[in-house]
Amino acid sequence: MPDTPTNEPHRIRDIRITPVAFRDPPLLNTVGVHEPFALRAIVEVTTDSGVYGLGESYGDAAHLDRLRAAAARLTGVDVWHVQEIARRIRDALAADAGSGGHGMSGMVTGTRTADRVLSPFEVACLDIQGKVLGRPVSDLLGGAVRDRVAYSAYLFYKWAGHPDAEPDSWGAALDPDQLVAQARRMIDDYGFTAIKLKGGVFPPDEEIAAVRALRAAFPDHPLRIDPNGAWSVETSIRVGRELAGVIEYLEDPTTEIDGMARVAREVPMPLATNMCVVAFDQVKPAVEQDAVQVILSDHHFWGGLGRSRSLAAICDTFGLGLSMHSNSHLGISLAAMTHLAAATPNLTYACDTHWPWKDPEDDVVVPGTLVFEKGSLAVPTGPGLGVELDRDALARMHERYLACGLRERDDTGYYRRVHPGFDPTPPRW
Amino acid sequence: MPDTPTNEPHRIRDIRITPVAFRDPPLLNTVGVHEPFALRAIVEVTTDSGVYGLGESYGDAAHLDRLRAAAARLTGVDVWHVQEIARRIRDALAADAGSGGHGMSGMVTGTRTADRVLSPFEVACLDIQGKVLGRPVSDLLGGAVRDRVAYSAYLFYKWAGHPDAEPDSWGAALDPDQLVAQARRMIDDYGFTAIKLKGGVFPPDEEIAAVRALRAAFPDHPLRIDPNGAWSVETSIRVGRELAGVIEYLEDPTTEIDGMARVAREVPMPLATNMCVVAFDQVKPAVEQDAVQVILSDHHFWGGLGRSRSLAAICDTFGLGLSMHSNSHLGISLAAMTHLAAATPNLTYACDTHWPWKDPEDDVVVPGTLVFEKGSLAVPTGPGLGVELDRDALARMHERYLACGLRERDDTGYYRRVHPGFDPTPPRW
Ligand SMILES: [Mg+2]
Ligand SMILES: [Mg+2]
Repeated sequence: MPDTPTNEPHRIRDIRITPVAFRDPPLLNTVGVHEPFALRAIVEVTTDSGVYGLGESYGDAAHLDRLRAAAARLTGVDVWHVQEIARRIRDALAADAGSGGHGMSGMVTGTRTADRVLSPFEVACLDIQGKVLGRPVSDLLGGAVRDRVAYSAYLFYKWAGHPDAEPDSWGAALDPDQLVAQARRMIDDYGFTAIKLKGGVFPPDEEIAAVRALRAAFPDHPLRIDPNGAWSVETSIRVGRELAGVIEYLEDPTTEIDGMARVAREVPMPLATNMCVVAFDQVKPAVEQDAVQVILSDHHFWGGLGRSRSLAAICDTFGLGLSMHSNSHLGISLAAMTHLAAATPNLTYACDTHWPWKDPEDDVVVPGTLVFEKGSLAVPTGPGLGVELDRDALARMHERYLACGLRERDDTGYYRRVHPGFDPTPPRW
Repeated sequence: MPDTPTNEPHRIRDIRITPVAFRDPPLLNTVGVHEPFALRAIVEVTTDSGVYGLGESYGDAAHLDRLRAAAARLTGVDVWHVQEIARRIRDALAADAGSGGHGMSGMVTGTRTADRVLSPFEVACLDIQGKVLGRPVSDLLGGAVRDRVAYSAYLFYKWAGHPDAEPDSWGAALDPDQLVAQARRMIDDYGFTAIKLKGGVFPPDEEIAAVRALRAAFPDHPLRIDPNGAWSVETSIRVGRELAGVIEYLEDPTTEIDGMARVAREVPMPLATNMCVVAFDQVKPAVEQDAVQVILSDHHFWGGLGRSRSLAAICDTFGLGLSMHSNSHLGISLAAMTHLAAATPNLTYACDTHWPWKDPEDDVVVPGTLVFEKGSLAVPTGPGLGVELDRDALARMHERYLACGLRERDDTGYYRRVHPGFDPTPPRW
């Protein structure tokens, strides 16, 4: 055997968790509006063999506390022993009441704490495994089945700029024409071939009009709308029927498995979710009721890439479609999402990403690996995730975290500064 | 990074498929009796980097043809690209009508051809990956969660010897006392802490009496009985009720998901299967009807170790128990089963194995790795599967394959030589 087996253990020696902040435009959703900075946690795992790996996760304070509690238990574990890492994290969090730190501003609260915490460590371990092997992470997931991963143009209603600040370059998007203009710029810049609209912001008829305007402007782009559960069952059914033949799936029109099941029986298109099925124990009740037809996976809350592939196998087995959810994120997450999507045969929809909303200068990875062309990314072929940490950038973005004062995501509180008394409780319509 | 990444590709250069035969005692089941020789296919995959990996599969002629057709398509594929290997195998078999070669003498015919064929190649690729890394295959599956894997004492009704041959050392087992003696020897020799009885051979009341005799003789050993679908729904319900509190699960009392569902509603213990749910597309209907509560996985027909782990995730997600099925097998399969079981947290039952029925001299692997103690095997810690091919033994067992004249498993035909007109069609009772 010509290769010298690298059979020394690669044990975790050190874990560094760095909260960072990056600029975020005032994107509207049904619970409020994005604050001026989005928070993330950058996880660096270093082995006693001197290899480092990267993970990225939510930056909310309660989540940072859990990441640190978990990290304290992981010293000495071999990076191939992901199941042992998962066990130690479950133990570390056993007494955790689990409130707060979900990273999604109250929109998605049913994710499992242990899986959220496991995710960045698992990704970092896979990054290390790939570096040791000299192979991309996709190889560790059975190998890429496609060499490019398609993403969607993720449109948001938005204010022109943050309160008391100049308008940003995107400007306001508060009506169909402005959304079409936003879509046109995003598609011109990135080449996306599918469009997703974040809804739940304006009364449904306005959002239906926006979808129709997008359909007219982009007749060949598959469309989706996601009001994040803002609608009642009745409203969801009405909107679903009106958009028959216009959208490829309807994402979380209403909350809860029961509600989605009632809508699913009455609308012609598949229902998708990243709200009512966000953990393995929610899959069975959803399947029993045929409540959703597409699950949006997200390795950040499904427990990493390996467990997200289990979710994919479950979807394949139960005839569920599979798409991919995104929060505001940096390049480590984008690389991980791309490897996962590349190695998941039944992930057939263009993945969501907030990437275009991030300032290109704001990232912790050395640029160059992740460049959109025709709406898709080439699957990185370098060792591990294929991205390298820019330590100067990390330091700068950590300084910004310290300076910005934000410690958890609070879209609702920020929106209330402009609209006191705003109540995001669903159903809003 | 101190390790030199082994980032050269490890492409498949050569695949050798060798049918072998090994002596098998006259073990009775509901479709007949084991012939004097069991057949297996030994798959050796060699890379252009000079590493070889092992897989083991069924030895029936139709299956050998498919293995060879698949192997012809795999040259040049990197051994980390298991999904590409699976895709090529699906293509190679696309025109295959799929009859014959199931390796299970007509008892289990619903397995998927592409998954049966994929399995030994996938295992061989994991063996190679592990050798390149200098790590056990369990590490490639997330790491062992236990350092020993428990197996069960697999009891069979049997003739004293093959027709026209001397009795073998086990002698006859045709009544409860003889089965208890068989169990005692097997437990004395191997230390098993759980017992499985292959039933469906004698009228159910005789088999109930055997189970009760085993319970009396081994009060602390969990018991199971598996008549391979020999019973009607009504008989299954009656037997299940009579064995309430005596067995840990009732395995395939009757055939088909519908029948199992009707039994499941009326008996107090879990129903287990390796007959009505043997492929991913059978899981959903079984879950919908709550037809089975335990699935016996088997990497030989579920598509290898990776897909078997997907099955484990499905079982975990849907609240199904997980156990492991066995056919007559050699050491390559036993090593693979042990790595898989070690890395599967929710595989909580002792696994089945036919190992004690094999002559210790009959194997293709160098002895020493797989030694039972207290009914369990230590998970191999050497690179890959942890077993090495004994090429002299392989040659001898291939000679025996050529000489023995058997080309497919036919328990029914063999039984009919003694009992002409025997009809195995279920339900027999
Ligand atoms: Mg969503
Ligand atoms: Mg069975």
